[in-house]
Amino acid sequence: MEIKLDYTNMMADVAGEHGIREEELETLADRIGTIHRDLMDRREKGSLPVYDLPFDREQVEEVRSLADSLAERFDNLVVLGIGGSALGTIAVSRALGPFHHNLCDAQGRNGRPRLFVLDNVDPVGVGETLEILEPQRTCFLVISKSGSTVETMSQFMVAQHWVREQVADAWRDHFVLLTDPTSGPLRKLAREEGFRSCTIPEKVGGRFTVLTPVSLLPLAATGIDIEGLLAGAAAMADQVTRPGLADNPAYLNAALQYLAYGKGLKISVLMPYSDRLRDVADWFRQLWAESLGKKFSLSGDVVHVGPTPVRALGTTDQHSQVQLYMEGPADKVVTFVAVENYGRQVAIPSFPEAPELDYLAGHSLNELIASERQATALALTQNGRPNCTLSLPAVTPEAVGALLYMLEIQTLVAGGLFQINPLDQPGVEEGKKFTHALMGRAGFEDKKAEFDAFEKGVKRRSI
Amino acid sequence: MEIKLDYTNMMADVAGEHGIREEELETLADRIGTIHRDLMDRREKGSLPVYDLPFDREQVEEVRSLADSLAERFDNLVVLGIGGSALGTIAVSRALGPFHHNLCDAQGRNGRPRLFVLDNVDPVGVGETLEILEPQRTCFLVISKSGSTVETMSQFMVAQHWVREQVADAWRDHFVLLTDPTSGPLRKLAREEGFRSCTIPEKVGGRFTVLTPVSLLPLAATGIDIEGLLAGAAAMADQVTRPGLADNPAYLNAALQYLAYGKGLKISVLMPYSDRLRDVADWFRQLWAESLGKKFSLSGDVVHVGPTPVRALGTTDQHSQVQLYMEGPADKVVTFVAVENYGRQVAIPSFPEAPELDYLAGHSLNELIASERQATALALTQNGRPNCTLSLPAVTPEAVGALLYMLEIQTLVAGGLFQINPLDQPGVEEGKKFTHALMGRAGFEDKKAEFDAFEKGVKRRSI
Repeated sequence: MEIKLDYTNMMADVAGEHGIREEELETLADRIGTIHRDLMDRREKGSLPVYDLPFDREQVEEVRSLADSLAERFDNLVVLGIGGSALGTIAVSRALGPFHHNLCDAQGRNGRPRLFVLDNVDPVGVGETLEILEPQRTCFLVISKSGSTVETMSQFMVAQHWVREQVADAWRDHFVLLTDPTSGPLRKLAREEGFRSCTIPEKVGGRFTVLTPVSLLPLAATGIDIEGLLAGAAAMADQVTRPGLADNPAYLNAALQYLAYGKGLKISVLMPYSDRLRDVADWFRQLWAESLGKKFSLSGDVVHVGPTPVRALGTTDQHSQVQLYMEGPADKVVTFVAVENYGRQVAIPSFPEAPELDYLAGHSLNELIASERQATALALTQNGRPNCTLSLPAVTPEAVGALLYMLEIQTLVAGGLFQINPLDQPGVEEGKKFTHALMGRAGFEDKKAEFDAFEKGVKRRSI
Repeated sequence: MEIKLDYTNMMADVAGEHGIREEELETLADRIGTIHRDLMDRREKGSLPVYDLPFDREQVEEVRSLADSLAERFDNLVVLGIGGSALGTIAVSRALGPFHHNLCDAQGRNGRPRLFVLDNVDPVGVGETLEILEPQRTCFLVISKSGSTVETMSQFMVAQHWVREQVADAWRDHFVLLTDPTSGPLRKLAREEGFRSCTIPEKVGGRFTVLTPVSLLPLAATGIDIEGLLAGAAAMADQVTRPGLADNPAYLNAALQYLAYGKGLKISVLMPYSDRLRDVADWFRQLWAESLGKKFSLSGDVVHVGPTPVRALGTTDQHSQVQLYMEGPADKVVTFVAVENYGRQVAIPSFPEAPELDYLAGHSLNELIASERQATALALTQNGRPNCTLSLPAVTPEAVGALLYMLEIQTLVAGGLFQINPLDQPGVEEGKKFTHALMGRAGFEDKKAEFDAFEKGVKRRSI
């Protein structure tokens, strides 16, 4: 399963002054070597288990058997989770399931349940989703590593009440808890109350969990080939553990993105030309933003660093964003994702009454979407806007697994280049504390006082 | 229908060095005055009809009657359109329709058809959508101002063939053409072949068409209260035509965004805390990017200007993007959209087996989502990241109409401040020409030669 990275249009001799010079890439080779050795060392010591997830046969067996039993018993699976507990599942189910999975009848879904991912606490989203579901036929996957994520726990509290009201006995069977192997409220519930549960491996942060039960369980239950997904990742593991910049697509792409950032191209657009891959760009948006957006460097300096990832969709966003990408500030690098074989061919038939459109007849949507991607790439390049293209042979489980794994490793390497810790997210703690304070949680009285003092002291300006 | 703009946290005395000083706002007052007079003058002369769309009673009657007849006859409406022909419809139907409209049975949809918006030419998206539809019960709205948009025309060719194959007579009844009043291939088809049609008003560019039949027809057909939408816009028209910066939310917000851009906050995040308003942020993304992302100023200087709009969703993106917004580069301004009344209350019930979660019981999702928004706003502010909040009393047709109209006028004013033409999009022409060339269209041989020469001359780098 070969994913190709074409970076021709990233280079200064092709894209002009905002592009990258060969020697700039070369001077990174040593640093990449050091980062590589550090990553391999940490992998060896067991502190980077994300590398080894594609090879964990045990988790696959466990997930597969639980997934099948859920699929047999339930018509609806509802994921309660947010951030990394939701984005991978959304991305891969969109990429690999029936395109209108939830609209299909049971046969169209191959007998598999419908899938809903509640990744917010909007009363409308939660309320209107429960309203269309039948509790007897619905199972909730409650996903939180810590077992205490406030959004997910609130959803769980709503859901358990809703199920209990309508399913007297065995209401616990309608929940599966995915959480830390040993600690936290969800693990405690699993242990003491007999809920079924799955383990989120230790030392795998939320945004790196797409190849753990967090996503594998809902994906397998809805009929996605998770073995293929993992096999693709495993095949990619071979490529992205090569030491040299020139042989390793994850290292090379991290280096290109890092150099582009240094030239002021601080916005990184990921633009698949594929409806199926749309939400992979959204998954990547979390991976890239949360991993690289950091205040402190590894040595404790204040750096306020981090590219801003933007998801886009071709051809759609040619009619929304490309005007800005072409003519606005030179602050973006665009990564196109190409698909060589869409798995179906749609011919553009003739339309006898509309001779003006004859030039399209006999072609196909496949040709059109490929032409638009190539046309946009060249137009950007001629305009001095660096861009590159990741090509997938097809949107198969293997290719998607390979792509996700490559982007995960790319993120780890980019963390090394930016000299920050890509595995933490200290910047969201303040907001969480204020939320607890506003919800009146004991222990957060100081924060409540701080909030009140701000409100009292500030001069409100509004219209 | 009052929409409130709270810009407290935009100001330097609250948000620190990246914030805006009162005197900076004051010095813009004169320029805003000039821009205001220019806009009113052009409105008077009929060259800015977007101002008057909410008052066009005639279009409402026409749309309503056609919409009702479509709703009576068909189970599925498919919009064929891209960019401005799709985004407004997607945004408003998400905001105001049943939350799971397409999943509901006919009764849940109030007898209204399902809605599909095909805004891409992906063979999978188009092919798999047609596959789940029944041609006899499906109507296509073909939407293109020029009547020649290559993506939409290709979709139309695919759709007419698909319908003709299965509906012998009267196949034309399955299409409504929305296009220019007098010119282009779609208008010609309407005139000569008897297709039903609707008029897209002259001088209203694609990204400003949400209050024309482009969106009003599919919205009305699927049961959205378009009178309410227009009434809300009309009420807002009163506010956003006031001459003074201090009295006009569109002028004030444009000024704030413009000043923030000048301070290096070149990324503008729109972050509704509402699942229903999620795609309004996507609609705005086109409006802001395509209108303001320009190479040339009005006086012909090369300026390469334009903020980059980013859509986000609260609370979801707190677990994806807020780490970057907090700790990354100070290059963003965040506009929260608050909803005071979600229209439904979801209580967080107690969960006897999980005493650790007791602190949440007795509260509601409504409180939680509001607390998280306020918490995030304060955390950003304390961290020196300017932000403001647009508050809607509720997600009603009136409020959504008012919001859309306000953002449209804000865009026109921002165009004046940036000294560019917000109504054109010259930067996408090159890409269109290369697409035609690659599709082998007559008349584009030069562009094909240019493409081939590039390919031949360039040294391909890939891995």
